[in-house]
This record gives sequence, C-alpha cells and structure tokens, in this order.
Amino acid sequence: MHYRLIIEYDGTDFHGWQRQPGERTVQATLEDAVARLCGQPIAIVAAGRTDAGVHAAGQVVSFHSERTIEVDTLRRALNALTPADVVVRAADVVPDDFNARRAARRRRYVYRIWNRREPSPFWRRYAWHIPWRLELEPMCAAAAVLVGEHDFTSFRAAGCDAAHPIRRVWRSALERRGDLLLYEIEATAFLRHMVRAIVGTLVEVGSQRRRIDMAALLAARDRTRAAATAPAHGLCLAEIRYDDSPPASSAGAV
Amino acid sequence: MHYRLIIEYDGTDFHGWQRQPGERTVQATLEDAVARLCGQPIAIVAAGRTDAGVHAAGQVVSFHSERTIEVDTLRRALNALTPADVVVRAADVVPDDFNARRAARRRRYVYRIWNRREPSPFWRRYAWHIPWRLELEPMCAAAAVLVGEHDFTSFRAAGCDAAHPIRRVWRSALERRGDLLLYEIEATAFLRHMVRAIVGTLVEVGSQRRRIDMAALLAARDRTRAAATAPAHGLCLAEIRYDDSPPASSAGAV
Repeated sequence: MHYRLIIEYDGTDFHGWQRQPGERTVQATLEDAVARLCGQPIAIVAAGRTDAGVHAAGQVVSFHSERTIEVDTLRRALNALTPADVVVRAADVVPDDFNARRAARRRRYVYRIWNRREPSPFWRRYAWHIPWRLELEPMCAAAAVLVGEHDFTSFRAAGCDAAHPIRRVWRSALERRGDLLLYEIEATAFLRHMVRAIVGTLVEVGSQRRRIDMAALLAARDRTRAAATAPAHGLCLAEIRYDDSPPASSAGAV
Repeated sequence: MHYRLIIEYDGTDFHGWQRQPGERTVQATLEDAVARLCGQPIAIVAAGRTDAGVHAAGQVVSFHSERTIEVDTLRRALNALTPADVVVRAADVVPDDFNARRAARRRRYVYRIWNRREPSPFWRRYAWHIPWRLELEPMCAAAAVLVGEHDFTSFRAAGCDAAHPIRRVWRSALERRGDLLLYEIEATAFLRHMVRAIVGTLVEVGSQRRRIDMAALLAARDRTRAAATAPAHGLCLAEIRYDDSPPASSAGAV
C-alpha cells in the first residue's frame, strides 16, 4: 500500500529533513519509526526537503509498505514511536504511483520576524529577531512584486539543483501581528534558499538603509545584488497542495 | 535608587520564580545578574511568585540598588547578563517605597489549551494538550460565573498562605483561536494554584462527562468538589497592573 502523511516538526533539534550519516534528521527519525512498524526498511519521500533548523507545520511525505495498515492505526502508532518534536497529523492511502514531491502542486511557506527591541523567550526558536523598527509598507510593496512567473536567479543559492530558475509565485504578502511580522509565500515550487534570500532582502527594504527596487533586482538575475540569506529558524513549511487538496483557506491561514 | 523591571521568561527550564538552594530559578538568575551589575547582593521582589514550569510575559519585579544606573543601560546590561529564556522588556525608576508585590493592583493570567487530537511540536511547552473536543459554550458560561467578589476556597490549594480566601475577579473569559483555547483571568490577587484549579474544572465542564454547576461549586467552599489542578506549563503570567499603568487594552490582549 502507498501512504501519505501530513507531518509537523520543530526543526530546532534536527539537522534538516534529509537523512545524513551521524546526524539527527527528520527523514531518519520518521523512516526508522515506519520501518519498526512495517517490519521492513522504508524509503520516505518529502514534498519539501527543509534545511537544518527549518520547521514544518504541513510537510507531506509518502512511502510504500508491503504491509497493509489501517490509517488511524498508522497515525497513532507513528506518534507513539516518534519523539515529541515530530507529530503525524494525518495519514491516508494514496494511489500506487503517488509521490509526495512530484505530485505537489503548490508549496506555502511562512517566515516569522520578531520585530521588537528585546528578543522574546517564546519566539527565539521560531522567529528571526530584528531589533530595529521595520517599515511594513515598503516591504509589502516589494513583496507584491514577486507575484507571477519570474526568473528567480537573484534569489537562488549556489548548489541549487533545479533544472531552471523560473518559478510561479501565487501569493507573497506580509502582515504585522503585534510584535510578529509574518511573511507568507506560496509558489508552484521554490529554488534553493529562495524564501530566505527574499526575506533577507525584504528586511533590507524595511530597514530603509539603502534603496532597493525589487523589480530591478529580479530583472538583474544576479544573486550578489540581493541581501544575505535570512536565518533558517524563522522559516516554516506551512502547507503543500495537491490536486485532491480541499479549496485553499482564505488569507490568514498562517 | 529603586528600580522596576517588566520581565518575560520561558518557565520550561526554571524551577519557578522563587530562589531555592540547588535549583535554577528565575529569581536567582535575575538576582545574580543584578548583583554583578550593581556590585552588591540584591534582593528582588516579584509581583507574582510563579510555580515551576509557569511562564511569564509580563512579570514585574522591583529592587533597590545603592548604585545609580541609567534605565536603558540597566535593561541592556541585564539582557546581556541573563540567559535567552529570561528577557528584561522594560526598566524604570520608582519611588523608594515601591514594592512590586504590594503595589500591584491587578494580575492577569492566560492559560493555553491545545485542543486537537494530535499534540503540537510547537505548543508542547506552552499549552496543555486535551485530545478530545472541548465544548466552548458551557466553558464560557462557567468561566463567567467567576467574575465578581467570591470566596474561592473551592479553588485554593493546600499550603496557601493567603490571609483569607475572598478574591475579586475582573475578567474570566475563554476564546478559541484555531486549535488553541485561551482562558484569560484578571483578579486583584490569586490564591495558591487558583487559576490551574479553575482551568482543571473548566476542562471538565467542556468535556461534558459530569454536570458541574460552577455557582454551586463556588458556594460549596470545598476544594475536593473541583477538578484536579491543570498542569503548570499551560499557564502564563500575562500582566501586572499598578496605579500608574496605562489604561487597560481591550480584550484580546492575550
């Protein structure tokens, strides 16, 4: 049987999604639990290969098991076998040719910025602390420029293995909620470190230290023109959408 | 000079506010930092002596120092000297007879319940996980009964050192925000474990396993009639109000 899981994880104590020798990773943790349950080694595919420190509130993974397991039992048993920083929120059976990565239609990420003079003891693991006041309006305007189909070379990290740098962005918006600033971006797919490079640039825009023209920056197709990559711990993979996903919830689904 | 600080802390790794030999406590952490800065041992008074595991987003403390320190310097220096799970949000100078505990007029606490079948990797330190569906309406009705001046003996823990069990509650209300359920209570002062005993009872009300008449429970003045004390990690001391506090923000200040 082929299974799909929706999982959440606190990325703080993981060395990212992908299995690596000697490192605690989400893939290894989950594959080991599934293998124990199914009595055979299992390879798990994730829709988004999150980097070290990145969180997930809606990661989707798929795997094949010779053993047939009722989905409620699968979910419960995996939650009993995994540590508290990984949670299986849902499980269902999918067609045999389903692949969580290839079948994904849209990915939505949320990046959190803690924008107050003092850091927060509660958000220190989940938000990037910017102690000076960020101006929201120019940041919103710059974020909106990214919506549509563009060449994102200016926001593409070295070592990116994508076939080409063109991506379609469906949503790119910011909002302030008290001392938190939330940036939400939804796209068909992303280049390596693309969200974090965009956030680094948006923070420069909001800091108003140098003038940044987002449209010109995109057009330049030059990574050296954008700002430094924002830290991983502010980033959260919020949602993956498939052909069978329910209609998108309205804005504010963060 | 007499100083007042507003502090925040993640209570997870503290054995509560109060200094105890051999334990990591917020008071000891803060007193040690202030002593280093002032070059003398300092005794710090807190408005609310939070228990082990309880968090604070608006604890207020006061102390006297022979040394005069500019308040911005004091705040910055203390944040440099304290670990990441304690943050000094504000500092000001107060009259010599000011005592953070005695001068406090109202205390506001927030209790968080994570009400979804699966636990959350993000809220596991800050909310009590109740995996069955809680019915909000009867909980709201029961919470509202507590507003006013009442004898809270039914919600008073053994060992409480208060002179009498009468307390005035200014606000007692619940709201659902997604999978989080927030209970907010503001009172002149609280008895030992009072908020957690109330929350334990509200959860029983919402679980609808036995009929609970909150008014009758209050009138009974019998701790054995109320439910078990809710766990500490869902509780957060949100705000302390003084005669010189700015006007209260509207509901939703959680």
